[in-house]
Amino acid sequence: MDPLLTDLYQLNMVQAYLDRNMTDTAVFEFFMRKLPEGRSFYVAAGLEQALDYIETLRFPPETIDWLAGTGRFRENFLDYLKDFRFTGDVHAMPEGTIFFPNEPILRVTAPLPEGQLLETGLINFLHFQSLIASKAARMVIAARGRTLVDFGLRRAHSGEAGLLAARASYLTGFTGTATVLANKAFGIPIYGTMAHSFIEAHDDETEAFEHFAQSRPDALTLLIDTYDTEQGARKVAALADQLKTSEISVQGVRLDSGDLAALAKSVRAILNNAGHQDISIFASGGLDEYEVHRLIASGAPIDGYGVGTSLTTSSDVAAIDCAYKLQEYAGKARAKYSPGKVTLPGRKQVWRTYDESGVMTGDTLSLETDSGEGEPLVRRVMRDGRRLKPSPGLDDIRARFAHNLKSLPSRLRKLESRPRRYPVDVGDPLRDLADKTPGA
Amino acid sequence: MDPLLTDLYQLNMVQAYLDRNMTDTAVFEFFMRKLPEGRSFYVAAGLEQALDYIETLRFPPETIDWLAGTGRFRENFLDYLKDFRFTGDVHAMPEGTIFFPNEPILRVTAPLPEGQLLETGLINFLHFQSLIASKAARMVIAARGRTLVDFGLRRAHSGEAGLLAARASYLTGFTGTATVLANKAFGIPIYGTMAHSFIEAHDDETEAFEHFAQSRPDALTLLIDTYDTEQGARKVAALADQLKTSEISVQGVRLDSGDLAALAKSVRAILNNAGHQDISIFASGGLDEYEVHRLIASGAPIDGYGVGTSLTTSSDVAAIDCAYKLQEYAGKARAKYSPGKVTLPGRKQVWRTYDESGVMTGDTLSLETDSGEGEPLVRRVMRDGRRLKPSPGLDDIRARFAHNLKSLPSRLRKLESRPRRYPVDVGDPLRDLADKTPGA
Repeated sequence: MDPLLTDLYQLNMVQAYLDRNMTDTAVFEFFMRKLPEGRSFYVAAGLEQALDYIETLRFPPETIDWLAGTGRFRENFLDYLKDFRFTGDVHAMPEGTIFFPNEPILRVTAPLPEGQLLETGLINFLHFQSLIASKAARMVIAARGRTLVDFGLRRAHSGEAGLLAARASYLTGFTGTATVLANKAFGIPIYGTMAHSFIEAHDDETEAFEHFAQSRPDALTLLIDTYDTEQGARKVAALADQLKTSEISVQGVRLDSGDLAALAKSVRAILNNAGHQDISIFASGGLDEYEVHRLIASGAPIDGYGVGTSLTTSSDVAAIDCAYKLQEYAGKARAKYSPGKVTLPGRKQVWRTYDESGVMTGDTLSLETDSGEGEPLVRRVMRDGRRLKPSPGLDDIRARFAHNLKSLPSRLRKLESRPRRYPVDVGDPLRDLADKTPGA
Repeated sequence: MDPLLTDLYQLNMVQAYLDRNMTDTAVFEFFMRKLPEGRSFYVAAGLEQALDYIETLRFPPETIDWLAGTGRFRENFLDYLKDFRFTGDVHAMPEGTIFFPNEPILRVTAPLPEGQLLETGLINFLHFQSLIASKAARMVIAARGRTLVDFGLRRAHSGEAGLLAARASYLTGFTGTATVLANKAFGIPIYGTMAHSFIEAHDDETEAFEHFAQSRPDALTLLIDTYDTEQGARKVAALADQLKTSEISVQGVRLDSGDLAALAKSVRAILNNAGHQDISIFASGGLDEYEVHRLIASGAPIDGYGVGTSLTTSSDVAAIDCAYKLQEYAGKARAKYSPGKVTLPGRKQVWRTYDESGVMTGDTLSLETDSGEGEPLVRRVMRDGRRLKPSPGLDDIRARFAHNLKSLPSRLRKLESRPRRYPVDVGDPLRDLADKTPGA
């Protein structure tokens, strides 16, 4: 990420900190605030990209020259940036961890200017992927094991957003994505069929199907709703018989419009009557977790779902209220008292307890020096600016999330969960510190 | 943009097109569908980045090797990509143009595989900036000439999204942005004050203000809500007197929490009573166009607004239903008949008429060969893969949008506009063609 993808005030503050040698150790924590309506948990994601950002943030000569040319900054600041390299520690919850409001998922412990300079970039990386993973997890819950593919690159808020959304959804259990670069960059399985334009470019729908089958015989899925979905299904059934001679098998059909529940039933009947029980039905077109849930509840014989815009933009909750807050400076706890935004100071840990069958029973949020019961979720991942060990692979993160989801109390695994809050206790030492940290 | 930031099906389709030499001229158009509830117009933006994408899309050897390694593609396709360079024409509405559902804002005329390959990237660029510009325009309307600054990089869906959101909001009339790179990349004015962490890192709020004033004397704005907003205002008033001896003047205070209308009034009174009528009040903190409107309507003495998340994520409308549709291939109009998604085929133009005072009276959407009345909005911007002339600068785009907004009927300039639709007529030749373009 370009080092100038930051807010101007970060640079202003660092200039001011350097002017007074305010370079003592600062502790910043990133956390989410109140859950959006209907939501019952968050999923931590984006740590990998956040750590890459921390490790690689540099200000190359061209950037320094440009900053000097603005006339806004003095030599001490420009010299500081020339040699900038993060030297602090980072603690974090592993990606794929389910978490709750006010629980820190990342902590930076570093000289104040370093911690401050990272703010905008860290929020950007952690917020977005956690936002998408938290949305995707709901789709995974709704799909009950059926195929789920991310189709949302085109309406994601930038190409980078589309790529990172593919990653964030895959780690929650999506089957794959249509985004080709996600395969190259992250090894995520990719899926692709055909667009309506392919059908329309031919003068005849059957001809288009046949042409596509000959050119793309692997994992062959045909889009059948361009003109008339049931007619399309009949054409596919006939073509599938005909293709047997060339040893090409039709794997699936895709429906992208109309009453998907009703069409899936009639298409299933058409295919079955023609002896094609093995051709699967894939649905797409403006779907979200509620629609997937509704379709499955209706008994629609749909084997897989493509979800796009609702996933990659988290369309009902386009952003989560979150913060990267100064919790300690120069050995003193820090807090602000802006109305409605009171925060808990100090270096914190989250302990999670489980019942004997492995279901989560509650979290305790307290100072890391407290002796909490259960599993501590925040671990050191970087010391003196260097990662302690290679990051877990996406498969490991998927496994972690799957295990977290299995441990989640079933009342929190509903799509609507207003009154079903998970208990997060604030430990006494943290409460005491918050009480003792007054405003200036 | 990485050439692999695309959907797999684009590559599948191009492979199939090449296999049958389907390389005749295709016409694709990009347009938005139905307006979201409460909205009355769209703003075209992102053309500059879209044209850059079209002009520079290449598949370097490393990409070809990777594609070959997937085993999915044949030599004819890989050879095609090796030499890929867009050779077609592009017509578009200039950025900053107000437009309505079904009106094409971009048309690509090119050999079918070329037009198809561009789909995902073009939608991504045009959708996102048009989304943000359409949201930002509402904030500009609400702010009635007051200062408006984009604070939303941190919660934008990626750094690229934040940067492009700064551009899209600036072209609608925003005063500037906090995103530093937007100044370097696009010349957009940047603004920055201080965060709460700066205050909290000091043991005393006044000391923090004074320190910041000494280090950052230009455009000095102090954040006064960390502990107690009215106390903060009194401290600033006293400090402003004291700073006069060092010829530093406090330009403004920022409120970021609490009842902004009430606090702005009491802060204004405190500052005025101390003789500091010249210190302006800037407000931020979870604002959107409705809140800005409400604050201004309440008479709150706020001189400028910082808006963040609601702007850069277009939080109430995180995506707009839009499409890049094949409208013609090999000289024949094309359309699909998927339920609820019927499109208008052919190469289209939009003509706009105005009354004698320059107010828009209606648009006509018809075939470009039709003889429409009024101003044609879709112009040729690229011929044979090359731009016809340098793109307009951001100041020109701002001027165009400002003029468009002035021409917009006042009933459409309300924040809520359900029943106030702008008339877009479909011309007879287009209607006839749509009737005559049957499904296969």
